[in-house]
Amino acid sequence: MENTRHGVAVVGCGTVGGATGALLLKNADILSRRCGCRLELRAVVDRTFSHADELGIPGSLCTTELRAVLEDPSVTVVVETVGGVQAAREIVEQAIDAGKHVVTANKALLAEVGPQLYDRARERSVSISFEASCAGGIPVVRALYDGLVANEIEAIYGIVNGTSNYILTRMVDAGIAYRDALAEAQAEGYAEADPTLDVDGTDSAHKLAILASLAFGIQIRTDDVHIQGIDTLDTVDVTYASRLGYVVKLLAIARRQRGGVSLVVRPAFISREHPLAWVSGPFNAVSIYGDVTGHTMYYGRGAGGAPTAGAVISDIVSVARGTYPIVFAGRESLGAPATGDALHLLSPDRLRNRYYLRLDVRDTPGTLARIAAVFAEYEISIASVLQTEAPEDAVNSVVPIVITLHRTEEGILAEPLKRIEELDAVSGSVRPITIVDEHPEAEFDVCSNNGVR
Amino acid sequence: MENTRHGVAVVGCGTVGGATGALLLKNADILSRRCGCRLELRAVVDRTFSHADELGIPGSLCTTELRAVLEDPSVTVVVETVGGVQAAREIVEQAIDAGKHVVTANKALLAEVGPQLYDRARERSVSISFEASCAGGIPVVRALYDGLVANEIEAIYGIVNGTSNYILTRMVDAGIAYRDALAEAQAEGYAEADPTLDVDGTDSAHKLAILASLAFGIQIRTDDVHIQGIDTLDTVDVTYASRLGYVVKLLAIARRQRGGVSLVVRPAFISREHPLAWVSGPFNAVSIYGDVTGHTMYYGRGAGGAPTAGAVISDIVSVARGTYPIVFAGRESLGAPATGDALHLLSPDRLRNRYYLRLDVRDTPGTLARIAAVFAEYEISIASVLQTEAPEDAVNSVVPIVITLHRTEEGILAEPLKRIEELDAVSGSVRPITIVDEHPEAEFDVCSNNGVR
Repeated sequence: MENTRHGVAVVGCGTVGGATGALLLKNADILSRRCGCRLELRAVVDRTFSHADELGIPGSLCTTELRAVLEDPSVTVVVETVGGVQAAREIVEQAIDAGKHVVTANKALLAEVGPQLYDRARERSVSISFEASCAGGIPVVRALYDGLVANEIEAIYGIVNGTSNYILTRMVDAGIAYRDALAEAQAEGYAEADPTLDVDGTDSAHKLAILASLAFGIQIRTDDVHIQGIDTLDTVDVTYASRLGYVVKLLAIARRQRGGVSLVVRPAFISREHPLAWVSGPFNAVSIYGDVTGHTMYYGRGAGGAPTAGAVISDIVSVARGTYPIVFAGRESLGAPATGDALHLLSPDRLRNRYYLRLDVRDTPGTLARIAAVFAEYEISIASVLQTEAPEDAVNSVVPIVITLHRTEEGILAEPLKRIEELDAVSGSVRPITIVDEHPEAEFDVCSNNGVR
Repeated sequence: MENTRHGVAVVGCGTVGGATGALLLKNADILSRRCGCRLELRAVVDRTFSHADELGIPGSLCTTELRAVLEDPSVTVVVETVGGVQAAREIVEQAIDAGKHVVTANKALLAEVGPQLYDRARERSVSISFEASCAGGIPVVRALYDGLVANEIEAIYGIVNGTSNYILTRMVDAGIAYRDALAEAQAEGYAEADPTLDVDGTDSAHKLAILASLAFGIQIRTDDVHIQGIDTLDTVDVTYASRLGYVVKLLAIARRQRGGVSLVVRPAFISREHPLAWVSGPFNAVSIYGDVTGHTMYYGRGAGGAPTAGAVISDIVSVARGTYPIVFAGRESLGAPATGDALHLLSPDRLRNRYYLRLDVRDTPGTLARIAAVFAEYEISIASVLQTEAPEDAVNSVVPIVITLHRTEEGILAEPLKRIEELDAVSGSVRPITIVDEHPEAEFDVCSNNGVR
């Protein structure tokens, strides 16, 4: 322990970087004992240091000179917390070229150029670790490369954006509209002034790309994920979800099927009995289905300074212990296709799901029959219909008809929905919402599955 | 990868051992690629081999000769799955003395003599890993020594016995009595013929001892855990729990408070809003509260051949990669008291909880007043009372009075309860049931906790 030292430089002193620096200072002794070597904060690199000051990080550690820090041989680990893609990429590349291990919380960076950075790091015999990039404080990246290493991963279902989850929870619990819930989330500090990347699904797609790349051993980029956000969701659909026994969640879903992997982020209906249904407010959770372990789920705070810094520090400790560099060096230890064949990406059109539809129709005779006839023509099977009476005194009033469909291939839906939209009695567009059933656990055939102790 | 080889010997070919052997054979290639070295099943040691036969494990790998296996230099990892304490201890000691790494699923063994075995292993520069000993397929041991390494652990709340959880779930959902639910669990393969260790809390205590030892850096044995099982639970209390908005769960709880650690296993009421409330049937879940990461929870199958074998294999891979032996060698990396001072064990008498009580009283005037007076005398504050009318025609009929108490120190309860039991109108004994509130998350003071992306 006395012989080895690891100096850490934190680049970017915002919420996560500042918390990381402060924790490294505060808990230096216990962290060093857990590492089995001396762990030291050597530098905090930023342009201004008022936040560092607030956190009690001594001015002697604060510097604007990244180059000098990278030339310091006592610095072995560089923590990148500046965010964004371009500037962060340059910092990470410089750190790698200087022979430093990199720890990052930057999901956008990894979802865009992760593989190129990993290759560069492997060439220089250093590692890039990124537990903090997905689901904040929840150790789910480790679950994929370590705890679940015996598995072929079948599916991942994640609630990985706290802002969206907070907004949806408020829409469900308080019955308020999207705009109002968003304003509330901003007031509470759970949404940024510009919440676009959170509510349009992009942030969830970044995280899904990283997790699915690990899980399936293929390089997945954000663009490979079919994205739909919560920003188009109507309160009325959230209310119908409740009436039908569902909860609306923004889910990031990766499923292996038919030799391919499908990747979607979308608001979906899940049953109140589903293990993800009760994940509320700013919390995140990731359900992983493996062929050996079956279903496991990981739950916790998906963001925030301290939880995310906790994940960053777990990565720093793994580098200082010398364990993570071993895992990272083995190209196939971070997700290897179990079959040996690379999986291809599957279009969402090939997904088979149940669906919820709400049609705004004028209350005229025969409308439901005409709608049902269209579905029948395409051999799409209706599971349930909910139509309430229009007020007696309203002539030609518009009433919603809520329909759920049995399991159907998604690509087949477009045509009949277009034809239904064209019916005279139907107004507005029809947007199907996916109903997500609990994923079946694989039954591992060579092993009896008895005993529950 | 071609240079290094790790030979694995599995001792005990029951449910877990058999599944481990079969998986090592079936997935040898992918596991080897993930390890970065050749991983090979070299031997299955048992007395009989009918199960090995069923699983397609070749006879050439089956042997009754442990000694010969331990003398084989190509065997580097010994998996102990025989169970029990005495025989398992001998096997593990022999394996250590032969210089083999040990992987075990044996919670009873570790909860009894873990520390002695760890010391012996460290002297021989080998490791003992035990992910499979707690909560089957859920990677929660790793969460403590790796993913949450930045934290001082504040508390652990676990549902870690699938048999008990299955029985309680059936009692709640179907309203059936303990005996009937147990019989059903046995019929379904979720309870053993002799379920004593499961339903009396001992099995949960084994697991809590292992998890808490890791979390708090002190040596905790099963005897240190204050145990109460579900076998004394009345259906009527389960029903009252539902009426009051609670669910009954067998909880294993370790809490750090006032410089000490309290350790209990008991059936408890938890609110339906509590993250553990929805964990049903044979599933397990462990909630961990850390001072940095806040609340994280880990959920999955707590038993069964394949899930448990998945945990065993994750340990084998960590040994073959060379990562776990590093962690194990650092005595303090498996749980180090963050303060540097060892925590002492706290008597359950010092716990402060809310409590539920059911008193069977003869419906005579003034009884409730007398009961309330006793509590008042001890300054114990009543939170709610539920007393339903006795049937009109019943004279001196016995009716239940259900009382919940505000937060009270447990040790203070004994005397007033004894006095209440002695009241003429009260029949039978009064057993308080703990009401577990959601554990507060620590607010880590140096770090702002905003942002939820």
